[in-house]
Amino acid sequence: MQDLPIKGALKDEQLTIIENAGILVSEGVIAAVGGFTDLKAKADHIETITHDAVCIPGFVDAHTHICFGGSRANDFAMRNAGSSYLEIAKAGGGIWDTVTKTRKESETALIAGILKRSQEHLQLGVTTIEVKSGYGLSIEQELKMLRAIKTAAAASTQDIVTTCLAAHMVPKDWSGTAEAYLSEMGQHLFPVLKSENLTQRIDAFIEESAFTAKQIAPYFKKAQQLGFDITVHADQFSAGGSQVAVDFNALSADHLEASTQKEVELLAKSNVVATALPGASIGLGCDFTPARKLLDAGASLAIASDHNPGSAPMGNLLTQACILATFEKLSNAEVLAGLTFRAAAALKLKDRGVLERGKKADFMVFDTSNYQEITYHQGQLRPSMVFKNGEKAF
Amino acid sequence: MQDLPIKGALKDEQLTIIENAGILVSEGVIAAVGGFTDLKAKADHIETITHDAVCIPGFVDAHTHICFGGSRANDFAMRNAGSSYLEIAKAGGGIWDTVTKTRKESETALIAGILKRSQEHLQLGVTTIEVKSGYGLSIEQELKMLRAIKTAAAASTQDIVTTCLAAHMVPKDWSGTAEAYLSEMGQHLFPVLKSENLTQRIDAFIEESAFTAKQIAPYFKKAQQLGFDITVHADQFSAGGSQVAVDFNALSADHLEASTQKEVELLAKSNVVATALPGASIGLGCDFTPARKLLDAGASLAIASDHNPGSAPMGNLLTQACILATFEKLSNAEVLAGLTFRAAAALKLKDRGVLERGKKADFMVFDTSNYQEITYHQGQLRPSMVFKNGEKAF
Repeated sequence: MQDLPIKGALKDEQLTIIENAGILVSEGVIAAVGGFTDLKAKADHIETITHDAVCIPGFVDAHTHICFGGSRANDFAMRNAGSSYLEIAKAGGGIWDTVTKTRKESETALIAGILKRSQEHLQLGVTTIEVKSGYGLSIEQELKMLRAIKTAAAASTQDIVTTCLAAHMVPKDWSGTAEAYLSEMGQHLFPVLKSENLTQRIDAFIEESAFTAKQIAPYFKKAQQLGFDITVHADQFSAGGSQVAVDFNALSADHLEASTQKEVELLAKSNVVATALPGASIGLGCDFTPARKLLDAGASLAIASDHNPGSAPMGNLLTQACILATFEKLSNAEVLAGLTFRAAAALKLKDRGVLERGKKADFMVFDTSNYQEITYHQGQLRPSMVFKNGEKAF
Repeated sequence: MQDLPIKGALKDEQLTIIENAGILVSEGVIAAVGGFTDLKAKADHIETITHDAVCIPGFVDAHTHICFGGSRANDFAMRNAGSSYLEIAKAGGGIWDTVTKTRKESETALIAGILKRSQEHLQLGVTTIEVKSGYGLSIEQELKMLRAIKTAAAASTQDIVTTCLAAHMVPKDWSGTAEAYLSEMGQHLFPVLKSENLTQRIDAFIEESAFTAKQIAPYFKKAQQLGFDITVHADQFSAGGSQVAVDFNALSADHLEASTQKEVELLAKSNVVATALPGASIGLGCDFTPARKLLDAGASLAIASDHNPGSAPMGNLLTQACILATFEKLSNAEVLAGLTFRAAAALKLKDRGVLERGKKADFMVFDTSNYQEITYHQGQLRPSMVFKNGEKAF
């Protein structure tokens, strides 16, 4: 995927395929990529790690909620059995159920949960993973989550990128207005995020059930004044969030299942990465992000798992991306770009997602002689080896 | 799933859940199911195999094409990249590509392929699997496939049920009419199936691109005269096959993505099992079988993988069933019934699919204390142990 554009449609013919290839790694970074015999002449030490296999960059999962307590298996069963959103909420389900359970967890238990799940993602080829807060929804509880993610990040083989999603919903135990909640978070949470270096990223859920564009504007302005990057949960059930993402020059607008042609064109004209979350579509049984339209209009498309206990409990990014590909008609090049360098761009990471000199030596091996087999098996063909910073991680 | 009806909608409350349960097995058959301590009093020998786990019946995959040569990864990539059916056929793809590759394979190579794939299914909890011919499309080549499946069945831990799908399409190298091809198969293939005891089941693909209802009638009549059971590939791209299935009192009508309310009601009134194949929907990116409508109308719904190299190369039945469940809104009881005793009925097997006295001791264990977690993780939670005829198979 050397020299592929960051935006727009891609054809498989644009992929660079090197036969009998090798990668030279120095201090966790790619020093050279090329033919094995050519590299052998240059290298101090080079070994054959596999035959008849395909090596591709490690995946970047740019949107997850894998820091949480409890299970929502009962919500899931109720929804599949035909219960409405309201019926589930009445039965004690929904995001608030996870908030309640997460608040009860110790920081140590949250760390263990993140590490368990991130390790499962690593084995499926994810070498960089984003993790959001958003089930704390008070200063103390959001900090507990973000500190847990920071500690997990230090212990994890993968790179973990942290995002503050204090603006996930107005907490049910908040007695004031949505505006007052956001103001409180901006005034008293943001400075601690800075002083403890907990995150560089602020996210918000723009939706009728969460926050309106108008409510979120002062919150995002405050975040930007403090130097945070912005990312947005946009257009999941109703359109509107994309406009906010573009207005605030967000790194990414994620979800987009309800984006209309207007939002597609808006995103395509911008530098906002459009992030599809097919795990939510197959978790809820609803529409897929209009990925084909976004790419054809010229947008940059990333694909992330949205791994969370409510709407996307599967947590297999490759399977989800491959299912998006059949429904939305995405080329292998578009899928692979969306899982690697385009997803890295959504996290403002320019140092990974492509196998070329100077990039992080994050890559994985599939036991097949044809790269097309990776998407063909829709996730059933799993990587046999995963390397992080040049070291074998799995 | 004791005493659940074979037809119609099911609620999770109808599932029988036994806490601290045990299963007594004698000669591969369930002798008793009940509380562990109660059974301990009755048993010569009983041991604890796991704690905090859920045990359910082994899955029955009632529709696969896992006897084949070659890969269709290139077809798959072309289709995802937007190529039409015709463009793919022109490039040498489609069913005929698999026929060509399968004809070139030795019987030994086909046996190895079946066993490799059936073993993968076993590890995902499938203790009984159906395998079709249909990539031979000449008497000699269909026999090669069916003999390979018979040999694989004898060597496999799972039970393999064989089906003859000589009526998959009119072979491109057949110079006569569709009617003449079917007549040839009926006259000269059917007797060998009987004499070599290769299969009890005759299948046909009813579709504009394959065989019409009128063309298939004499073929099915002949099959029934010889005592074969009938099953049908019905309503995949256009409605019509369901009527054939009902007219011939078929065991099952499989696919049904294009079934209208008329076919739904027709199937519901009949004893034909309606078999959804969500693997084909997520492989092609097209509509799901109207499973909810079928169940609500009173039909019996089985769920099978359709594992094949063209349209359903994933081969993970549980993942596919769980995705069907979110899109079609199926209860856990409906999903589990569709994967077990209702699927067994599609294969005319009354001796499995339920954990009760007298049934085969085919079951598996998931490491969770809540059975809802099985569908919740959409296939990512895999069985930790699988038992076939009471013996640990995985």
